[in-house]
Amino acid sequence: MFRLTIGNKNFSSWSLRPWLILKMIGEPFEEVIIDLRSPESRLSLSTLTPAGKVPVLQDKQLTIWDSLAICEYLAECFPGSHLWPSDPAARAIARSMAAEMHSSFSTLRGQMPMDVASSRESPASTPELAADIARIVHLWEEQRSHYHLAGPFLFGSFSIADAFFAPVAFRFKTYGVVLPEASQGWVDHMLSLPAMQEWAEASAEEIRAGA
Amino acid sequence: MFRLTIGNKNFSSWSLRPWLILKMIGEPFEEVIIDLRSPESRLSLSTLTPAGKVPVLQDKQLTIWDSLAICEYLAECFPGSHLWPSDPAARAIARSMAAEMHSSFSTLRGQMPMDVASSRESPASTPELAADIARIVHLWEEQRSHYHLAGPFLFGSFSIADAFFAPVAFRFKTYGVVLPEASQGWVDHMLSLPAMQEWAEASAEEIRAGA
Repeated sequence: MFRLTIGNKNFSSWSLRPWLILKMIGEPFEEVIIDLRSPESRLSLSTLTPAGKVPVLQDKQLTIWDSLAICEYLAECFPGSHLWPSDPAARAIARSMAAEMHSSFSTLRGQMPMDVASSRESPASTPELAADIARIVHLWEEQRSHYHLAGPFLFGSFSIADAFFAPVAFRFKTYGVVLPEASQGWVDHMLSLPAMQEWAEASAEEIRAGA
Repeated sequence: MFRLTIGNKNFSSWSLRPWLILKMIGEPFEEVIIDLRSPESRLSLSTLTPAGKVPVLQDKQLTIWDSLAICEYLAECFPGSHLWPSDPAARAIARSMAAEMHSSFSTLRGQMPMDVASSRESPASTPELAADIARIVHLWEEQRSHYHLAGPFLFGSFSIADAFFAPVAFRFKTYGVVLPEASQGWVDHMLSLPAMQEWAEASAEEIRAGA
């Protein structure tokens, strides 16, 4: 069985991505939660991976320590789940989107940290924050305009691209970001998924428990 | 024919990666260089891709705008070139390394920007910079200890992992970073590749031309 080590659900946006994929394909896995604010927990994480970051996927002797690499591995393990779009051109676009999310949007990350269980006031807009949001909305609108007849996810069916932007769905809800219709439709659909609701409930429970 | 849009060779580390892969597999391509310091050039880039970043690969009607997504696309287009290791576990490790390079090492990027044609004094060491260098060296040493009999690249044969760390080979040379033997061996091998020498010569020519 896979073993997935993740951080606190309320704020570990990177952890959500592979967790959501495993839930969406219905693959059972052992979940290990590391409290990233505890020095002891962080120490135990550094023995698991010298990179010292979550998420980490273990498959028997193999340890994969980056969120995108984990998703690529799952796509290879479960070809029938089509975790990337089947069409090569759509797949290249989906990978560009996931990779852009993986390396960019530092202002959004800094100014609108994921805080699933809370409603927060939107931070003062700056040109950089507005540009990050506009860029994400542009990407979403573009795919939804192409694939709206194929299904409710970015590329019609669920893909790694949806998983990569899933934390942004939580962020936009927390900070009350107003979106155009197609983007809001995608956010609403994502937030309605049982797996996303399970993550949100666990986040709220963490906060109630003072974790 | 592929069309690859890249930045100034002397300092656009992201551009080097897919360029090097196309050269290593001997695939002819049209090269378009954007001077990232010119507002007009940046404007032309933004019409090519709203992300406004290099590199960008065009394959007929398809535009791929992220370096890692471009490399994945090339791996799919040229399965015989084995741009990822053939073994699934090695491939997952190689992808973890490339993805970690894609999202991390911000101190190294900031303190030791790529400047291929120059020799520069090493910046004052900080714990963060030392940690970035130590992490990279750890990754290299680990793979070289596993694969040193299989060939001179990180995983024996050339892979996308080598391409992702290629800019670090240039950086460590520019700043005179002292490395353990296996890591220095990998750097020396990378710098000896005709494609890397071609990039270095073009970088020097850019500087001479005042570009």
